[in-house]
Amino acid sequence: MTRVLIIGGGGMVGQKLLAKLLTDGLPGHAALDITLFDVGFPPTCPEGPARITGTLTDPATITQLAGLRPDLIYHLAAIVSGEAETDFDKGWSVNMMAMWHLLEAVRAQHVASDGAYVPRVVFTSSIAVFGAPFPPQIDDEFLSSPQTSYGAQKAISELMLQDFSRKGFLDGISLRLPTICVRPGKPNLAASSFFSGIIREPLNGQEAILPVSDTVRHWHASPRAAAGFLTHAATLDTSRLEGRRALSLPGFSCTVAEQIEALRRVAGQDAVDRIKYIPDDAIMKIVAGWPRDFDPARAIGLGFHAEDTFDQIVETYIAEDLSNTSG
Amino acid sequence: MTRVLIIGGGGMVGQKLLAKLLTDGLPGHAALDITLFDVGFPPTCPEGPARITGTLTDPATITQLAGLRPDLIYHLAAIVSGEAETDFDKGWSVNMMAMWHLLEAVRAQHVASDGAYVPRVVFTSSIAVFGAPFPPQIDDEFLSSPQTSYGAQKAISELMLQDFSRKGFLDGISLRLPTICVRPGKPNLAASSFFSGIIREPLNGQEAILPVSDTVRHWHASPRAAAGFLTHAATLDTSRLEGRRALSLPGFSCTVAEQIEALRRVAGQDAVDRIKYIPDDAIMKIVAGWPRDFDPARAIGLGFHAEDTFDQIVETYIAEDLSNTSG
Repeated sequence: MTRVLIIGGGGMVGQKLLAKLLTDGLPGHAALDITLFDVGFPPTCPEGPARITGTLTDPATITQLAGLRPDLIYHLAAIVSGEAETDFDKGWSVNMMAMWHLLEAVRAQHVASDGAYVPRVVFTSSIAVFGAPFPPQIDDEFLSSPQTSYGAQKAISELMLQDFSRKGFLDGISLRLPTICVRPGKPNLAASSFFSGIIREPLNGQEAILPVSDTVRHWHASPRAAAGFLTHAATLDTSRLEGRRALSLPGFSCTVAEQIEALRRVAGQDAVDRIKYIPDDAIMKIVAGWPRDFDPARAIGLGFHAEDTFDQIVETYIAEDLSNTSG
Repeated sequence: MTRVLIIGGGGMVGQKLLAKLLTDGLPGHAALDITLFDVGFPPTCPEGPARITGTLTDPATITQLAGLRPDLIYHLAAIVSGEAETDFDKGWSVNMMAMWHLLEAVRAQHVASDGAYVPRVVFTSSIAVFGAPFPPQIDDEFLSSPQTSYGAQKAISELMLQDFSRKGFLDGISLRLPTICVRPGKPNLAASSFFSGIIREPLNGQEAILPVSDTVRHWHASPRAAAGFLTHAATLDTSRLEGRRALSLPGFSCTVAEQIEALRRVAGQDAVDRIKYIPDDAIMKIVAGWPRDFDPARAIGLGFHAEDTFDQIVETYIAEDLSNTSG
């Protein structure tokens, strides 16, 4: 029995991961004993997995979680980019200090086990670790020089995870997720929320606001691709990372105009007509400092994969989430 | 009167910086009111500047230092690479957490001053933020993927300093010093200590141990160059950094064999004969993960400069420090 802890298991990506683990399991692991941790859980959360409710800003809670000695720890919890930018204390507390406390708590279990306990830790980082100016495509050797607090906190967490892994206390990997699109459900406080909103709201018969120019280019993958990244990372031979434990993942690069064209092809002009352009300086400023395109050769070589077109991303949303969305 | 705080002011680089500030002052600053902070001070420390003795692992001490509201804060204090590798807790506590507490304490003063207090903070980072495999020369866009705890702690401090600067709480710059060579005085716990030792000990009539192959290539600058970097950073227009506040600095790249040839040219064969090759696996392993050569175009464009030959580095030691070294 493999013990799995999903920190942030109540969130959108956590729920997608959970559904995939319950359906497909993990290669080489006969059975999974899954525990979810989050501030709360959606009504649609499947029964079965244990649930622990709490906040990551409490080190005692983190100590308790590490005390479960999970074989596999997913750390998906974060204060999203927009909120981390407006609430400086909260962003650093949850996105950086909680990571530190988690790593220290796992290390304490490692030491208490005389070195026998070395869990796999899969951490969701972000392409926000990169900051402008960018090359046309960001390759695997481009520097992390973030221009948001969220990006800085993610880049720091990557560095901590890499060093604790190098020392053998745990076996970590940081996945720099593309912007996940189309997110089901409601808009969130992430500055990237509109990338999903301009597809999701029209498909649900609602008006969507586009706060940036349609020439903005960005890097996307579906929630289904994200769940695939996370399960692939659980069983990857980490010696193949050769000490560089942060990976930029595959995605699809397109402009907002190309997103809208995909929506038109899949759902028609009526859907497109529901998008209203209302510029927002604050969001434009954040997004201007974000990456647009990648050459994620390492991750592709390690077997990670995502969608090849934005049409596929729209179709994945329709297949998996459209019927579940409350109107 | 410009208030200057030098954290780590009792160390070698701190003392070199102090001497330069006392001799040359700072351009555009009529007079300097200097305070030194460190765990202790050498007997040769000049009289005049105020001294505060303490440890950076005490947040109350850091709060007290920030309460002085220095216009210019140098943060030079660190647990060196070798010790940070063997004492994991101490390295993270001093090299990472103390940086966090310092930035938070400065931010508290910024807030208490209604935003009027925005000090320049000059932080000594290190080329240890880079990890192998390397390109032939490391340019200004190469990633930080350190392979030592020391390097991870420095890279994290850079990211914190950049984000606190971006938010306007302070005005920071991180200087990735080359390995400082020739360090006066005694060997220290840095894994890089031998790069100085193989020059310094022979010049003082003593035997030196070379723990790595003489084909090892590395990146050097003198203590005099380091003091010059630090004073230049104090008055640099940081808007020229365009948001990327960590700089790889100029230096001179050469192999250990070329260092030894320079010693032979400057001091003769007798000096060279005092070097004994005694391989040390632990040091070789750390040094193998260190950079060898740089293309520091940004820093050169911003007016930083260092030596052009290793002979100059040897001669600088002889001119500035040889007579002061106890035998």
